[in-house]
Amino acid sequence: MNYFDTEDTICAITTGGGMSAIAVIRISGNKAINITNSIFSKDITSVESHTIHFGTIIHDKSIIDEVLVSVFIGNKSFTGEESIEISCHGSIYIQNKIMQALIDTGCRNATAGEFTMRAFRNGKLDLSQAESVADLIASESRVAHDTAMKQLRGEFSNKLQKLRTKLIDFASLIELELDFSEEDVEFADRQQLENLLDIIRIELKKLISSFKLGNVIKNGIPVAIIGAPNVGKSSLLNCLLNEDKAIVSDIEGTTRDAIEDELNIDGLRFRFIDTAGIRETTDSIEHLGIERTIEKAESSNIILFVLDCNLNINNQLEELNKVKKECRENILIIANKIDLNNGSNNKLKNSIPISAKYNKGIDNLKKELLKFVNTKELSNNETIVTNLRHYEELQLTLNEINIVIEGINNSVTGDLLAVNIRQALFHLGSITGEVNTETLLDNIFRNFCIGK
Amino acid sequence: MNYFDTEDTICAITTGGGMSAIAVIRISGNKAINITNSIFSKDITSVESHTIHFGTIIHDKSIIDEVLVSVFIGNKSFTGEESIEISCHGSIYIQNKIMQALIDTGCRNATAGEFTMRAFRNGKLDLSQAESVADLIASESRVAHDTAMKQLRGEFSNKLQKLRTKLIDFASLIELELDFSEEDVEFADRQQLENLLDIIRIELKKLISSFKLGNVIKNGIPVAIIGAPNVGKSSLLNCLLNEDKAIVSDIEGTTRDAIEDELNIDGLRFRFIDTAGIRETTDSIEHLGIERTIEKAESSNIILFVLDCNLNINNQLEELNKVKKECRENILIIANKIDLNNGSNNKLKNSIPISAKYNKGIDNLKKELLKFVNTKELSNNETIVTNLRHYEELQLTLNEINIVIEGINNSVTGDLLAVNIRQALFHLGSITGEVNTETLLDNIFRNFCIGK
Repeated sequence: MNYFDTEDTICAITTGGGMSAIAVIRISGNKAINITNSIFSKDITSVESHTIHFGTIIHDKSIIDEVLVSVFIGNKSFTGEESIEISCHGSIYIQNKIMQALIDTGCRNATAGEFTMRAFRNGKLDLSQAESVADLIASESRVAHDTAMKQLRGEFSNKLQKLRTKLIDFASLIELELDFSEEDVEFADRQQLENLLDIIRIELKKLISSFKLGNVIKNGIPVAIIGAPNVGKSSLLNCLLNEDKAIVSDIEGTTRDAIEDELNIDGLRFRFIDTAGIRETTDSIEHLGIERTIEKAESSNIILFVLDCNLNINNQLEELNKVKKECRENILIIANKIDLNNGSNNKLKNSIPISAKYNKGIDNLKKELLKFVNTKELSNNETIVTNLRHYEELQLTLNEINIVIEGINNSVTGDLLAVNIRQALFHLGSITGEVNTETLLDNIFRNFCIGK
Repeated sequence: MNYFDTEDTICAITTGGGMSAIAVIRISGNKAINITNSIFSKDITSVESHTIHFGTIIHDKSIIDEVLVSVFIGNKSFTGEESIEISCHGSIYIQNKIMQALIDTGCRNATAGEFTMRAFRNGKLDLSQAESVADLIASESRVAHDTAMKQLRGEFSNKLQKLRTKLIDFASLIELELDFSEEDVEFADRQQLENLLDIIRIELKKLISSFKLGNVIKNGIPVAIIGAPNVGKSSLLNCLLNEDKAIVSDIEGTTRDAIEDELNIDGLRFRFIDTAGIRETTDSIEHLGIERTIEKAESSNIILFVLDCNLNINNQLEELNKVKKECRENILIIANKIDLNNGSNNKLKNSIPISAKYNKGIDNLKKELLKFVNTKELSNNETIVTNLRHYEELQLTLNEINIVIEGINNSVTGDLLAVNIRQALFHLGSITGEVNTETLLDNIFRNFCIGK
């Protein structure tokens, strides 16, 4: 069994595991029709593409199921090769029996992502589009879905293609120079070259910086809820989630483990982390909890620092000193328990007043959270990089471009510049798969689900 | 929303829940094509039946997904009405978005079994065939699958139809007599009538008695493993299941809760129940466990009574007295620990020698278990009743037939016989749905899964 063997005809259950009304088994490869035909009650060897046929699957002389068989001929299928979809009753027994029958008659089990890999190999999708298929399937929020869909529809690929064309233009000027290198002529105007590289650099930087947003879109935005004991952190979590996730009591130190849950606000996924209250304690379990709180806060994109607005605020704010300096710009200060506010002048500038107990001010808090995410890029229809591999390749491309710019400034010769330009083109091309290796493909597709 | 409203166009996710490569959404009703058309990028209003169309689902001006749309026109679909299947990427977000788009444009969520109910209403399946669809989806073993498939393909319905025809023949003779009742003529030869009824009765009885087997085929055959403490009951369970399901130790009374698991032997599903060892004990939890053992044994179809063949066998056999007499014919005696056999004459007739520890004699035990199930009927291609409702209706039919036979013997007049014949026809007809009520249909289809 060879992952890269596209001569084989492969099959997999593509619908969700377990019992259901219907399950779909997908077959792809140059024997898809013949193999299916050998276990199907009707002759499908000369039907048209994109047609559906009702009949029975028969194997070892017994009827396995009444099914619908969909036929896709030639490159009009998802994979770009002859394909079949068998829509059967969703019993696990039946699904396994049909898979068994297919394997007995010449198919092999598809590995993860093998259908999409074939689509890539057959030129139906480029690599970044293929990767977006996995993202699309995993998408759980509107924004994650929209960015994956844009990528699937080639928006990112088009942008890269334009960048690549510019780089190739540049490279061809340089290479031309190399052909005449012995004549010591500079065909390429150095100033013009630098301008072109500047444009490329700006676009690369924009894409690279979009990854911070892209990453949180894909994986959710971690938000740590921290503060002194008993200021109402768990109450706030419950209030945000609209359920009793965390145990709430009047006893200080109730929460020990960090409790996490997700909330979708306006199509963006936030991961809230309730933590142990920060205080001096002799309880060793609680102490461990507090250490973890600091860690959680420091690895979060946003910190909600909860205060009890009826207690001395300066004392409470001191706890913030335990959090690393670089995290402090991501802090939202929440003044909780406004329902108890005794009218004292415990007012704090820029804090968000709420009552977790009475569900007051929560909508405002959600708005403030959204402001923290740069939603301008989202609404501006900008291309957002969501994939770590793409981010890294873009970063490597930028490094090479920077070397070229430095080279031009230091009057480095064209043949040396060409080396780095080629490297830049290599990294850029590997995103869409114009440049690829088996190792790269293997890494990408092994993370897909089976059947895709 | 009316379950019996077939004017609505209904939709449901028909594939398994959760994330997967592909999910299928099914739409059925006279607006299926128009509704889908309104959210699909291509015009499908004048395409042919059983064709597949690639395009995008667009709603609220945003692209939800790239999908395949399968079109089924008129009564050529499963439901017998205009139908669509949308094959989309299996993200939960996408599935929900497409469902939302369909509902926004005029569909309603299908209730459990509503598609199959429509197939029944539109004459695509009779009631017993429709019920077999649910059985087919739930089938987990070869035999359960085969019986459900036979039922779906109308074998049971044909048998009932033949019975019904015979009863109608009989009834028409009687009714004819009623027309001339004032002339006091007996058109129908009473002996001929009795012969006909005898044939019907024999066939009914055969079907009724097949239910015992049908029930275990569908629900698995419960097998209790009982015996004195420390004879190796849990070891036997682990050995049968080929895994460490039950905790095994040398300490008497290790097992307290009854542990259950299933094993498929030769296409039949057995449910094995490991129990607490039977002994006098002062431990109250263990005592509860022993009481439960006796209950489990008595509600099982088969009892495996495990002995340690190296200990005094008569003492161990005494424990069997605690089990009700009527269960005793279903007992298989297992002589365990033959690996330790010290050559003493602890031989017991008709016992099955095994060593759970060394996995010896287990295949033989499995064969003996299969013998307990009347597999003759299975191989003889007999019709097997697996549905409790059918069983009850057959039972009621038989009761009416018995009354008619008694009536004939007591020279009851034709008009009285006719009453019971009509009742028998009613019960028989309700199995296939020739006679039906909304309550009956509601009871049947509400147990289906959504999307079927």
